[in-house]
Amino acid sequence: MEIQFLGTGAGMPSKQRNTSAIVMKLLQERGTFWLFDCGEATQHQMLYTALKPRKLEKIFITHLHGDHIFGLPGLLGSRSFLAGDSELTIYGPKGIKEWIHTTIRLSKTALQYPLTVVEISEGVIFEDDTFCVEAKELAHVIPSFGYRVTQKPLPPTLILEEAITRGVPRGPLLGQLKAGHDVELEDGSTVKSRDVTTAPADGFVVSILGDTKFCEASIQLCDEADLVIHEATFDGDTEKLAAEYGHSTIHDAAKVAQLANAKQLIATHISARFIGSAVRTLLEQGKTIFPFLTIAEDFSTYEWKNR
Amino acid sequence: MEIQFLGTGAGMPSKQRNTSAIVMKLLQERGTFWLFDCGEATQHQMLYTALKPRKLEKIFITHLHGDHIFGLPGLLGSRSFLAGDSELTIYGPKGIKEWIHTTIRLSKTALQYPLTVVEISEGVIFEDDTFCVEAKELAHVIPSFGYRVTQKPLPPTLILEEAITRGVPRGPLLGQLKAGHDVELEDGSTVKSRDVTTAPADGFVVSILGDTKFCEASIQLCDEADLVIHEATFDGDTEKLAAEYGHSTIHDAAKVAQLANAKQLIATHISARFIGSAVRTLLEQGKTIFPFLTIAEDFSTYEWKNR
Ligand SMILES: [Zn+2]
Ligand SMILES: [Zn+2]
Repeated sequence: MEIQFLGTGAGMPSKQRNTSAIVMKLLQERGTFWLFDCGEATQHQMLYTALKPRKLEKIFITHLHGDHIFGLPGLLGSRSFLAGDSELTIYGPKGIKEWIHTTIRLSKTALQYPLTVVEISEGVIFEDDTFCVEAKELAHVIPSFGYRVTQKPLPPTLILEEAITRGVPRGPLLGQLKAGHDVELEDGSTVKSRDVTTAPADGFVVSILGDTKFCEASIQLCDEADLVIHEATFDGDTEKLAAEYGHSTIHDAAKVAQLANAKQLIATHISARFIGSAVRTLLEQGKTIFPFLTIAEDFSTYEWKNR
Repeated sequence: MEIQFLGTGAGMPSKQRNTSAIVMKLLQERGTFWLFDCGEATQHQMLYTALKPRKLEKIFITHLHGDHIFGLPGLLGSRSFLAGDSELTIYGPKGIKEWIHTTIRLSKTALQYPLTVVEISEGVIFEDDTFCVEAKELAHVIPSFGYRVTQKPLPPTLILEEAITRGVPRGPLLGQLKAGHDVELEDGSTVKSRDVTTAPADGFVVSILGDTKFCEASIQLCDEADLVIHEATFDGDTEKLAAEYGHSTIHDAAKVAQLANAKQLIATHISARFIGSAVRTLLEQGKTIFPFLTIAEDFSTYEWKNR
């Protein structure tokens, strides 16, 4: 799993930062990638990556402000044009369905794939054998959600070489060992599953939050997460603006990660007022509260490795 | 008046060409600029020009395909954020009003200026003392319009030095001369208006066409124009595709300019299949029919000078 930021700015595009879009690459895990928010020109940013829109499986929208959704219609159309034919599901707050369907209808956008738009409320919004996504409402000027993505524990994998060495023949016994069962060989000896398999491994937990001021829901959603992605539109000097517009300072973001006992925090949705050394100052301010902090840049990545 | 292309591609953005947007700079004429179509990331392209969104006065939309409108909502919001407070008028085909108002409502975009959206039909859609804009429906797969912008003849200007030399005193007589009236001086002699004023000068005629196949309406709209901006999505080898998708080849564009007796043709809406030397081939193909042809590139300009 790798996270890549396609847009890390707030409100409007600038030369340094595009509007919000975060990619979760699940190429090994699912052969697909997911997208969190889709500001204008997200598809343009993708042109400068190896991402293929046809591999986009799910889009999670945190809230309906333009800097988080105005790239959707273009991306939907281009995915079709670029041979995307697999189902695409969009999750987002109430209103997203009307907007997407109105836009597709009026612009006569022809989609060559099934599109499902799900208007969410709090709770588990997607779950299958390997992943679970939970949503929680945060505290912004309009309904804004955070998403907690949990990869379920990874099953043990068979260490084939070790099984062969212990005399297990190729065939169904190997499957039993992999499934956790001990087996008896023809010579009457026993091979234990735990001796020829890796231990089950934890999956990851990544919490990606929409625009919000500091709130209890954020802390819950980020509980013990491997990675928290939190907005930090303002800094200590501009905390009054943060309160006025329902945004967070870098201190708020750091407090959430600290109180949630998260392992890593990446701050994004950075106001265009912070450039150059001002970004470093922002980072230092946040690190006084939570040291495992970085500030996202357009195209920056975070790679999760199995512990 | 200067034309600047912000997007010259067809259908989707590429690294070479963004989706459609054409600026008509009228800074000397009106202190504003106009925009024709507004594909996704038009506001991003503007970041690399000196254009200030608050000086944007009118937007003319040719048709509702996404590559011509998906940049509108973001630009409308940013214009407000960037201190735009003067009225903005958008002209476009039926459906544009519903899309813009639905988008503004659902995204809670707050505009600090009066916005008027006019759904057009054929004929004069705007006229004041100095400009006239006429629309005509073309032939595409959905309703698509072309716009003919006429700058009205420029009034004579007084050659002050010449008037003074001929003995005209500073004062109201100068105004009468400028307005075209001959005047009698105190010594009984007559000064003729035409001797102390420049001749009235023609304004410009620029015809900007939306996506279309070759059609009679295009020729009428481009009649004797100083500049025709016409799509050329395809070339001679792909003319079947042009017919299928309601587009033009470079030959179609050239024929329109030739039959309309236009002075200059700029081809735009160039398919991403044409890059490098293929663009030069496209140009050569078109020039066999109409020699005063160039192919637009993103950020390329055309300057109109009074004859
Ligand atoms: Zn935002
Ligand atoms: Zn087009």
